Amino acid sequence: MLCPVARVYCRCTDSREGDVAQQARAVATRNAIVEAAAAEFIEHGFAGASIADIAQRAGATKGAMYFHFRSKELLAQAVIDRQRELNDELQDKFASSDLSALAILVSMVHALGDLMRDDVVALAAMRLAVEVPEGGDDRGPTYDAWAAPTSAVISHAIAQGDVRDTIDPEVLSRFLVAAFTGVQTASFASTRLEDLMDRLHEMWTVLLPGIVAPGREHVIPDILQRA
Amino acid sequence: MLCPVARVYCRCTDSREGDVAQQARAVATRNAIVEAAAAEFIEHGFAGASIADIAQRAGATKGAMYFHFRSKELLAQAVIDRQRELNDELQDKFASSDLSALAILVSMVHALGDLMRDDVVALAAMRLAVEVPEGGDDRGPTYDAWAAPTSAVISHAIAQGDVRDTIDPEVLSRFLVAAFTGVQTASFASTRLEDLMDRLHEMWTVLLPGIVAPGREHVIPDILQRA
Repeated sequence: MLCPVARVYCRCTDSREGDVAQQARAVATRNAIVEAAAAEFIEHGFAGASIADIAQRAGATKGAMYFHFRSKELLAQAVIDRQRELNDELQDKFASSDLSALAILVSMVHALGDLMRDDVVALAAMRLAVEVPEGGDDRGPTYDAWAAPTSAVISHAIAQGDVRDTIDPEVLSRFLVAAFTGVQTASFASTRLEDLMDRLHEMWTVLLPGIVAPGREHVIPDILQRA
Repeated sequence: MLCPVARVYCRCTDSREGDVAQQARAVATRNAIVEAAAAEFIEHGFAGASIADIAQRAGATKGAMYFHFRSKELLAQAVIDRQRELNDELQDKFASSDLSALAILVSMVHALGDLMRDDVVALAAMRLAVEVPEGGDDRGPTYDAWAAPTSAVISHAIAQGDVRDTIDPEVLSRFLVAAFTGVQTASFASTRLEDLMDRLHEMWTVLLPGIVAPGREHVIPDILQRA
């Protein structure tokens, strides 16, 4: 059932008698559990994280854990869902911007980098995406979810004349998502993301000369300032 | 002690009386254990892999496991060491090539992609590099080990006039290592590496126009054929 407080599918509204205060408490507990799960996934990976450690970190009882999440898979899904919400919010923010589409593309990647550094759930979702999925699990859709909106912004930048029309938006967006993933992963392994923003700036230094349309090279310095 | 058969540090030569046949058996067992560990790391990640499952997969006794590897960390290190050997062999192969440095750069990335698809130990080393290191472990040096030789090839390509002299070889090599990591990770998550070579080709389609020196664009089609 769609929870009126958390605006997510949540078992806290199963009882019609549940009052709003009770629902709010349930939502707070649920959020604490999701954040604790994120922290444990980052530290130990999906396979190494344990439900007991997540409960302890969240200060949640066994009963509360079982009420909200019956498995580690459901916790991972909640982390990924929350990252998608954050991602959608990010895109909404830029949708109303009057920047050029190319500036939006670069600024969105920058904002996503900031998000990874500031939000434990966003970072955990990225760590889950690069981890080895068990058995038949398919994390491919996670990458597609990032690539599709990126492709739309690139098409817009081509229409505005800033990006070469020889570029296939789907190819570039698929590569950008993979490159961001790799830069973030290498930065995490080397410096726990301390150098992430510098590495993303370097990424654009390498990419922009090959992406920007001939005759539009003068926009590069301004765009790089956003990277 | 340096093992005369495996040419690695190995306890099989601790006894001066050990004959060559016995050493060869020990090396075969050691290699079987490293391959089994690689397969388990790929399937379950470092945190999720268990020494017992690795022993069972390798058909090794508890005694043999303890003789060769006293911890999972040592198994991970053996996998990473083996990947470095394979990487060095790859670089030696290209060092004697008469291709241009730019063609070598692109061909080396292609060969590394092939290696990930063909060699379970090489793939496992990459999976370990993107996984979350526990506690104080630092996987940064793994990325540096890939970036340093790549940087040398890029410097060579700049000297040969194929790559723009505005490019900082260290910046490009650091980005290439990260981008390869990301492309490989996304391809693994989506298709278990089935589309890896297509995705690497796309990577070069995006990168080459921004890397190749003005006036040298005519080399791009030939270079792309190697990607």
